[in-house]
Amino acid sequence: MSLEQLEQLISRIAPPDRSAIEAARQRQARLTKPPGSLGRLEALSLQLAGILGSERPAIHGAAIIVAAGDHGVVAEGVTDYPQAVTAQMVQNFLAGGAAINAMARQAGVELVIVDAGVASTLAPHPQLRRLGIAAGTGNIAAGPAMTREQAEQCVLAGIELAQEAAAAGADIIGTGDMGIGNTTSAAAITSAVSGAPAEQTTGRGTGRSDAQLASKIDVVERALRANQPDRRDGLDILSRLGGFEIGVLAGVILGGALSRRVVLLDGFISTAAGLIAECLHPGVVDYCVAAHLSAERGHRAALAHLGLEPLLDLDMRLGEGTGAALAVGLIESAAACLREMATFDEAGVSDAEREPSSGPD
Amino acid sequence: MSLEQLEQLISRIAPPDRSAIEAARQRQARLTKPPGSLGRLEALSLQLAGILGSERPAIHGAAIIVAAGDHGVVAEGVTDYPQAVTAQMVQNFLAGGAAINAMARQAGVELVIVDAGVASTLAPHPQLRRLGIAAGTGNIAAGPAMTREQAEQCVLAGIELAQEAAAAGADIIGTGDMGIGNTTSAAAITSAVSGAPAEQTTGRGTGRSDAQLASKIDVVERALRANQPDRRDGLDILSRLGGFEIGVLAGVILGGALSRRVVLLDGFISTAAGLIAECLHPGVVDYCVAAHLSAERGHRAALAHLGLEPLLDLDMRLGEGTGAALAVGLIESAAACLREMATFDEAGVSDAEREPSSGPD
Repeated sequence: MSLEQLEQLISRIAPPDRSAIEAARQRQARLTKPPGSLGRLEALSLQLAGILGSERPAIHGAAIIVAAGDHGVVAEGVTDYPQAVTAQMVQNFLAGGAAINAMARQAGVELVIVDAGVASTLAPHPQLRRLGIAAGTGNIAAGPAMTREQAEQCVLAGIELAQEAAAAGADIIGTGDMGIGNTTSAAAITSAVSGAPAEQTTGRGTGRSDAQLASKIDVVERALRANQPDRRDGLDILSRLGGFEIGVLAGVILGGALSRRVVLLDGFISTAAGLIAECLHPGVVDYCVAAHLSAERGHRAALAHLGLEPLLDLDMRLGEGTGAALAVGLIESAAACLREMATFDEAGVSDAEREPSSGPD
Repeated sequence: MSLEQLEQLISRIAPPDRSAIEAARQRQARLTKPPGSLGRLEALSLQLAGILGSERPAIHGAAIIVAAGDHGVVAEGVTDYPQAVTAQMVQNFLAGGAAINAMARQAGVELVIVDAGVASTLAPHPQLRRLGIAAGTGNIAAGPAMTREQAEQCVLAGIELAQEAAAAGADIIGTGDMGIGNTTSAAAITSAVSGAPAEQTTGRGTGRSDAQLASKIDVVERALRANQPDRRDGLDILSRLGGFEIGVLAGVILGGALSRRVVLLDGFISTAAGLIAECLHPGVVDYCVAAHLSAERGHRAALAHLGLEPLLDLDMRLGEGTGAALAVGLIESAAACLREMATFDEAGVSDAEREPSSGPD
């Protein structure tokens, strides 16, 4: 794995198929419904047509890649949860007891659980993908999160994971995260890329006080000052402010686009990964669907920078890919309408007339 | 079928199970996630526990009852679509070519297609439930939609349809509608029940002009003046301003509650039926989940009157039960999290601590 390999891979990402989008648009206009009456599902279905290269896009399977990593910035007291929870939750994912497991079973979604850089050593498990990049990042409030080589390494690993999921039959590749302290990293990345001040990208977390929020904002500001990331260089931002799991997810996004699959972004952490992926290959966002708006404050700024509008807004802030899992059915439904609905001609249904019908009984 | 039978049936609707809700609340607090992090799914899962009478609610199946009816008010020019489209779309439902068919297949939802009062005679079909109440309503701008006996008849039929769906295994019973002209009826019902002026309950429809909207508002105001419905009497409102399909759906809502099933309201027409059901039995709304916010203007007022907050907001306005079909997966996911997630103790995951952990690497 090398930087050249990464650049070469990324350069092969092509834009969505414009002729499939145009054919889908024409088909949609003939389907048995008033124009526009399926609302946002209509534009979504055209996006699916472009990504999957068919005016009648089919979703055969979906996978969510859940990447876990630890964050040195927890030394700054940015969270109430002990760092051990990252590893404990990975075990919970593997045992099938977390929210993402329940939701994935419901939605028929495959889960891929990845140790991108958890601080403690996880026992081997047949379902655990261990990348072994490092045992957690450095404290970004004081210096870089990781080396540039490590940043490349996790992006490349993410690309490979997405390519594997695509080869295994996933037409939708979702992102999920676990990492105590990673909202601080995502806030710093969002501020670095979008220019939004730390107050707009830093959230309170669960039941924390005003003083704790102010302290977390200060940590994000210190991280930006200490690292001075180059906002045009995705690997620089990642190496200074990441997140091994964020780097892996940036790779998953790029790999999903490379494989011409629908990339389904979960919440704030996943969208921060999207910001890095879009830095690395502008236009990759055309393959992305934003599953939901997280209750985490910075998510709005991150989505706005990417020009994405979330499908769901249910005040969730769990991560793990839970928002993505909920949105899989919406995407499948959008594809199903475009693919399976009858046209006015096929169904013998009258289209709207200029003159209203005269009265009935 | 008689009024006494209707009153007797409705009086047997019991409130949701408070002890199951309390047990579910205690269970939820121990699940492996930060408190509140599943957002609106958490309150939804408690509602499901109360309706289904279990702290670990299970959804085994879902059905959507799609009721169709014609509206004499089309004589006033309130829509661009010919009345024949109602019957044509019922045929499309039976042939499997409509949006609701594609979505129901995707979500694993059973459809029950009901001719509640279509103006033209529909050919018999093994999947078509023909109630044969009448061949469309009267023009509400000039007089009542139907007789009080017909109103009772369609509500009773709806109750029976919901009971049948429950007996066949549906834990979620959704509503759907088809009826050219029925947004005018729903607007009049919403104004009559909520007191909101016709400008707030009447929508433009597809691509219609300001003048056509003004004319439709005038039709709704004339319907209210001509009929003077008694807002405390659900059958009076229905008989004067309905909708055979709206009456059937009001019955479906009552029958769902009677069977202790989750009642999933689709859009504006279904919520107008909810207003009538809530008139007939205050508290039935506790069994209801609002699937989505329709782009139809009056839907917001109707939901607000019932105190319901929609799960989805995707700018849809098709009816047919399409919003309900999209929301089935969200409800199943909420139930799955409450039912299947591990507790902190079971999973060996640490809960939040008062002191932040000291730093890592």
